[in-house]
Amino acid sequence: MVYPLPPVFARTVPDGDTHERAVCENCGFVNYENPKIVVGSVVRHQGKILLCRRAIEPRHGFWTVPAGFMELHETPEDGARREAQEEANAALSLDGLLAIYSVPRLSQVQLIYRATLAEPAFSAGEESLEVALFSWDDIPWADLAFPTVHWMLRHERMVQEGRGVAPFANPPGEDGNASPGR
Amino acid sequence: MVYPLPPVFARTVPDGDTHERAVCENCGFVNYENPKIVVGSVVRHQGKILLCRRAIEPRHGFWTVPAGFMELHETPEDGARREAQEEANAALSLDGLLAIYSVPRLSQVQLIYRATLAEPAFSAGEESLEVALFSWDDIPWADLAFPTVHWMLRHERMVQEGRGVAPFANPPGEDGNASPGR
Repeated sequence: MVYPLPPVFARTVPDGDTHERAVCENCGFVNYENPKIVVGSVVRHQGKILLCRRAIEPRHGFWTVPAGFMELHETPEDGARREAQEEANAALSLDGLLAIYSVPRLSQVQLIYRATLAEPAFSAGEESLEVALFSWDDIPWADLAFPTVHWMLRHERMVQEGRGVAPFANPPGEDGNASPGR
Repeated sequence: MVYPLPPVFARTVPDGDTHERAVCENCGFVNYENPKIVVGSVVRHQGKILLCRRAIEPRHGFWTVPAGFMELHETPEDGARREAQEEANAALSLDGLLAIYSVPRLSQVQLIYRATLAEPAFSAGEESLEVALFSWDDIPWADLAFPTVHWMLRHERMVQEGRGVAPFANPPGEDGNASPGR
């Protein structure tokens, strides 16, 4: 598709705002840029951990867990399951939140769940070169894609050893839509 | 400022994407809408809890904790401190993460911290009608702004009674920028 007028964004503070935003000089559209939420899972199966080798940049060819950007109007849990389906053709059963990490340089907050395979099948999705199960000793530590992957594997190990805890989250069955009196 | 060509957004699936996005029909700009992160704090001072009465919609006139949208390139902790400064002119000392809530209807994830006043001073900021300290028995339960405010006050109480725990987060001093080998 060809568009008549490409966007031209300039940094300026819109009326009534306190921060500089990207404003299109042609149309005045304010592109509010917000930090992004990454949802993902440390997936266990028969004592091993499922990892995906990235078919995309950044860190093409390095290993990570199934994870990606949360979409609108999904719960973080649904997002974590969707990403495992997309990247590893894997159906997950989630155990709960493992950890929350922030990467301010990338304006990212990561919500990482503990999970198991709901079915033993998995295979590489479009964004993965390969998907495999690793015992702890065989995890390719030198070829992990991101620092946060190190953190979550270490934290998963701590939980398995009984040194971890689950944080508070929504009360069971609640989605924040109930009347505040409940 | 007057702009020559107001934006016209239509929902369509961009090339190579899997989801419908808002695309400007004039310029082709894709407005990726992501879930938003709310950062806030349950603030204690001398055995009481600090609450703000909202001067803005939604829920004008109802009580909430200092909280708001996280900005780019700040940590959630810095965002929680900034919001308390803006809404309650309060300087906080943070104790750690209390809870993570999701509100899929609003595409919101809330990161709520435990905090104390670093200095005893506070006053209403621009978005607050008033700011006050409440003992547990005096909290205006029927006039709280949102369900999540109920949840976080209940969870704060559980932590104070020794029934709560802190979730995993970034290892001390780490911001996700280190080489993955660390």
